[in-house]
Amino acid sequence: MRIPVAVVGASGYTGAELLRLLVGHPHLQVQGLYARRAAGSALPDVFPQFTDVIVSDIDAFDADRVAELAKVAFCALPHGQSARAVAALRERGLSVVDLSADFRLDDADVYAEWYGSEAEPVHPCPELLGEAVYGLPEFHREQLRTTELAAAPGCYPTGALLAVGPLLRAGLVRPDALIVDSKSGVSGAGRSPGLGTHFPEAGEGVRPYKVAGNHRHTVEIEQELSALAGAQVRVTFTPHLIPMTRGISTCVYAEPTDTSRSADDYYQAMVAAYADEPFVSVLAPGQLPATSHVRGSNRAHVAVAYDARVGRVLAMSAIDNLNKGSSGQAIQCLNLMKGWDETAGLTGAPMFP
Amino acid sequence: MRIPVAVVGASGYTGAELLRLLVGHPHLQVQGLYARRAAGSALPDVFPQFTDVIVSDIDAFDADRVAELAKVAFCALPHGQSARAVAALRERGLSVVDLSADFRLDDADVYAEWYGSEAEPVHPCPELLGEAVYGLPEFHREQLRTTELAAAPGCYPTGALLAVGPLLRAGLVRPDALIVDSKSGVSGAGRSPGLGTHFPEAGEGVRPYKVAGNHRHTVEIEQELSALAGAQVRVTFTPHLIPMTRGISTCVYAEPTDTSRSADDYYQAMVAAYADEPFVSVLAPGQLPATSHVRGSNRAHVAVAYDARVGRVLAMSAIDNLNKGSSGQAIQCLNLMKGWDETAGLTGAPMFP
Amino acid sequence: MRIPVAVVGASGYTGAELLRLLVGHPHLQVQGLYARRAAGSALPDVFPQFTDVIVSDIDAFDADRVAELAKVAFCALPHGQSARAVAALRERGLSVVDLSADFRLDDADVYAEWYGSEAEPVHPCPELLGEAVYGLPEFHREQLRTTELAAAPGCYPTGALLAVGPLLRAGLVRPDALIVDSKSGVSGAGRSPGLGTHFPEAGEGVRPYKVAGNHRHTVEIEQELSALAGAQVRVTFTPHLIPMTRGISTCVYAEPTDTSRSADDYYQAMVAAYADEPFVSVLAPGQLPATSHVRGSNRAHVAVAYDARVGRVLAMSAIDNLNKGSSGQAIQCLNLMKGWDETAGLTGAPMFP
Amino acid sequence: MRIPVAVVGASGYTGAELLRLLVGHPHLQVQGLYARRAAGSALPDVFPQFTDVIVSDIDAFDADRVAELAKVAFCALPHGQSARAVAALRERGLSVVDLSADFRLDDADVYAEWYGSEAEPVHPCPELLGEAVYGLPEFHREQLRTTELAAAPGCYPTGALLAVGPLLRAGLVRPDALIVDSKSGVSGAGRSPGLGTHFPEAGEGVRPYKVAGNHRHTVEIEQELSALAGAQVRVTFTPHLIPMTRGISTCVYAEPTDTSRSADDYYQAMVAAYADEPFVSVLAPGQLPATSHVRGSNRAHVAVAYDARVGRVLAMSAIDNLNKGSSGQAIQCLNLMKGWDETAGLTGAPMFP
Repeated sequence: MRIPVAVVGASGYTGAELLRLLVGHPHLQVQGLYARRAAGSALPDVFPQFTDVIVSDIDAFDADRVAELAKVAFCALPHGQSARAVAALRERGLSVVDLSADFRLDDADVYAEWYGSEAEPVHPCPELLGEAVYGLPEFHREQLRTTELAAAPGCYPTGALLAVGPLLRAGLVRPDALIVDSKSGVSGAGRSPGLGTHFPEAGEGVRPYKVAGNHRHTVEIEQELSALAGAQVRVTFTPHLIPMTRGISTCVYAEPTDTSRSADDYYQAMVAAYADEPFVSVLAPGQLPATSHVRGSNRAHVAVAYDARVGRVLAMSAIDNLNKGSSGQAIQCLNLMKGWDETAGLTGAPMFP
Repeated sequence: MRIPVAVVGASGYTGAELLRLLVGHPHLQVQGLYARRAAGSALPDVFPQFTDVIVSDIDAFDADRVAELAKVAFCALPHGQSARAVAALRERGLSVVDLSADFRLDDADVYAEWYGSEAEPVHPCPELLGEAVYGLPEFHREQLRTTELAAAPGCYPTGALLAVGPLLRAGLVRPDALIVDSKSGVSGAGRSPGLGTHFPEAGEGVRPYKVAGNHRHTVEIEQELSALAGAQVRVTFTPHLIPMTRGISTCVYAEPTDTSRSADDYYQAMVAAYADEPFVSVLAPGQLPATSHVRGSNRAHVAVAYDARVGRVLAMSAIDNLNKGSSGQAIQCLNLMKGWDETAGLTGAPMFP
Repeated sequence: MRIPVAVVGASGYTGAELLRLLVGHPHLQVQGLYARRAAGSALPDVFPQFTDVIVSDIDAFDADRVAELAKVAFCALPHGQSARAVAALRERGLSVVDLSADFRLDDADVYAEWYGSEAEPVHPCPELLGEAVYGLPEFHREQLRTTELAAAPGCYPTGALLAVGPLLRAGLVRPDALIVDSKSGVSGAGRSPGLGTHFPEAGEGVRPYKVAGNHRHTVEIEQELSALAGAQVRVTFTPHLIPMTRGISTCVYAEPTDTSRSADDYYQAMVAAYADEPFVSVLAPGQLPATSHVRGSNRAHVAVAYDARVGRVLAMSAIDNLNKGSSGQAIQCLNLMKGWDETAGLTGAPMFP
Repeated sequence: MRIPVAVVGASGYTGAELLRLLVGHPHLQVQGLYARRAAGSALPDVFPQFTDVIVSDIDAFDADRVAELAKVAFCALPHGQSARAVAALRERGLSVVDLSADFRLDDADVYAEWYGSEAEPVHPCPELLGEAVYGLPEFHREQLRTTELAAAPGCYPTGALLAVGPLLRAGLVRPDALIVDSKSGVSGAGRSPGLGTHFPEAGEGVRPYKVAGNHRHTVEIEQELSALAGAQVRVTFTPHLIPMTRGISTCVYAEPTDTSRSADDYYQAMVAAYADEPFVSVLAPGQLPATSHVRGSNRAHVAVAYDARVGRVLAMSAIDNLNKGSSGQAIQCLNLMKGWDETAGLTGAPMFP
């Protein structure tokens, strides 16, 4: 029997990717789509790819109504709004995976500093922060098995943490000298059109943006790396916009704690860390991760290299920002929360070419 | 229980798409991968997207060995070679879906004219032509249910036939004045690199190629349209190369047999033709097919418009050339041949964006 | 000595392309940039590619001010607005090339039918229509030499007219059975972001739009082809949106007036028509026009093919929609109007790759 | 009067870009095109964009013949071959700009280590190394004015050196902790097709390659940065392949020599360094370089940011790899060598969009 699931925030790209994946999930049945501006529309009018695939209307969010229909919910609303929807659904007993940034940061003050606005200077529901588990199964699997609220990580943090997390946790690289250089497809900017994502301006070109501590994912990366390192980590994080729709390629530059180690030491540490992971592949030495090889899937390709000339470690990853970087990972979280096979609904192979 | 299936020609794009889809097929289990040049390699060395997804080596084709391991086979070799492999497998009792052009044309003389080379002037196995069924389920479903050999259609013919087939069959458009203008992604050219598919030359540009009766799919389109029309059809077929990887958009220009009909008459004919089709959506008036809305799926979007100013009918379609235009459709054929649910393994929603 | 020129509508893509080309024009000196929303900005804040290349502010349009500074002007405002600016500048004695649709159509009633809105149901300045010359030098060169007002053609009409114009004028193809199938880059939609031009939606996909007589360029194509044919022409025009920024590829399908002609007859007619044209190349038989080979230039590649199997003529062209399809051609017009070398400022070779 | 110039290696992308730029050069007249495999072809058969623009055949290289026709030459042959052609031309008195790697490295032993092969283990013409000047005008202008042999820099080194060179020279950042993360368009891989540059494999994806000291440009970057720093510099250099044709975006991570400096200190240093440079723009604080804003031009956009949270400097640049990163810069070198205006032939504005 399938459990009824609601998707709150069904009109954005993460909502669409959730729906695409849920079509094939053995334990879940979509039972309600919600959005603000798209409320009142049939789903295929908002996303024509679902014509004759998912026959459903999109409604305005109403927590009581959702609670009547569904047992679990994904929330993919803008931050701030998402927190309130999550609170209402948790109150009504639903298990929730939130895809916004609202429950990723442990500390409400840090949230206020990075996400607060004049209209909403503080976290809307700080009381739920203690309950929420950061939804990166590779590092929080056991906690996810026992929570009713998971916060699916940001796309950039997922790429960065999968790349360098094991090395930091194992004490192989220094926590005080990390640089994260990431390259993202344009879908990461969401579905709202703007000049920066207008095809003639985003095509055939690449550029950094929000550099030098100006991107909100910086603090999320730091929180999680600090936990793995057991020490306060500060990173330089540089996102780039790339002329493709899906994918994030990340290269983390790190300093070894012991310069006598060889390339193989780092490789073996990665292999050991991910040996039992269903979705992470450590590429053999000499191979490097390409986003096209994980496109459309919940898989991550990671690789490590050692620049012996200068004594520096490179930890690299490739993910699909909308899948492992968002909606696929959210489903992976729910699978753990519900005690299902962790790969349920996520066994699709990457689409290449 | 799953039936063992072999993929012969596993190192090209259609082979890769077959494997991607077969991972999720409920009745089939991949039990042998074969290719020429890639023989001896592990699959992920040829297609890194299958790292930790499909663990298998690629072998040189050996019909006896295939027959030992598998009950059914997909052949995706170059034409000529494919025919011989198919013959060997049929001889050994396997059901086969061939993705090459070898069994698409009913007439060995026509095949020789369009596909013959100095080295191989005639069809290698004309004796199998009578047995082979053209694998477009929308027009050959009943025959497919009872054959052991299906010839999966070419990508361009699939797009053209789905667009205008119903109108021609219903006598709504004239058989003697058809123009097919198609726009294809670059994956249709296969995996062998060349200057025309080199990124800097194929990117940011569009061009027609093999126009005016020089593309081999012309005769395949004509054969099938003639059968539907009950009359000899000749078409002008113009393929274009578009800077994208997947997708074919087709616009067929046709002359009405009766100029007193309205746009709605054509629309209703399309709706009637595809009412029970699991993979074909007739778009509502005013909507037009976009290849991005069927990407990665076996779905086809079709639409019809009537240019009342000049009295001309436009029949349009969008498909994924590697899926409905090739590997997805091949699986659909096998599902019919084996009496399974026609949609088995093909229920994945399109990947958008 | 350089003549001062104003660019009215400097904040869109055609304005930017004008400025790019004017930098190298031997007889013109940019002396005033005007736009509505961008008024008050420095040019590089609107178009960063001009940083340290063109140092100028953008002002609000004021006809008196323009007339003080400049002798000639390009207007690239939205239709309706452009007409009023043109009228004001003509009144003050400036020579003007208008890049909007306002002066392309000879007949104010036809304009009202295709461009009229509730707010503006009729042509704003019909009195100027008699003066305006359609700015396609290949067919209106002599008139352009003696006018003070040229209407630069639309991008699609330029592609269609260059492809089939000579054949129609020479009586080689029938005026009553023309189909124009065009494929355009996304810059043709202008600089205002929208969902249809949002990178994740416009990328990796192709779709027809405004088919069956719904695109305004239909009537412009018909007007000019009718003049060439000496008979009323009606066309079916189908535009497609392609995932590239620049370029239009056009294929015109035509019926021969005499089926005994050979492919070479059509080729020779094209060669004869364009023998002395500085910007049009007739490709040798077997070669086909690619938009990437004219990118960034005022050049047009045209080719003709004869589909002997069905007796149909294909007239094909490739242009850069922002250059020969807009701003380059506008400069070509002004060169003629001023009696300069027609190629002044336009000698740059295409940028490939 | 124009000086006759030969282009040796006219069939690759740098050759084509040279020809495109030379069309508009006031002091040069192309007087001979040479290539190996393309010898005997007409230029437009190799590069159709030059149809009716440059009417010339491509010949096999013959130093005597070149010396008869031309006074200066650009060599854009593969390394090794280029050195021999250069030597032959210098012997005959021609001024030469070499675009290969053959004369970029000062030290023949270092060349042998990075470029040597079994067939050619040592530098073919070490005697010319002393004469050759590294062709980055921003750092070698005076030497270029007095040499007859310039070695145009590699595309990646150009991007890296322009970004961080001034900071290193001014002693603002440490020479021992530099990381260069670069993102290049596919044209940087040249015109020979391969699987990695096949459109379906290079499109819609990004990947690092030749990381950790495996790319030959590493040593070139180090040589030049060492000279600027007055100390041995070692860098970690990470190139990435991006789904676009032209452009390189570079981000150099550096450690300040004095952590009390502010962001403005670095900005002012950049402004001072490039104040009189005709082709380098230092973007205002808050603006970041985009490759699309320099496309098709010899311009470079650079920016610097200071990550105060971690005390790290980011030096960023955007160039067109085929222009400022290759052929445009080669012409800039020749302009200096000949005492012409440094911007001759290079005044074209970037092509955007």
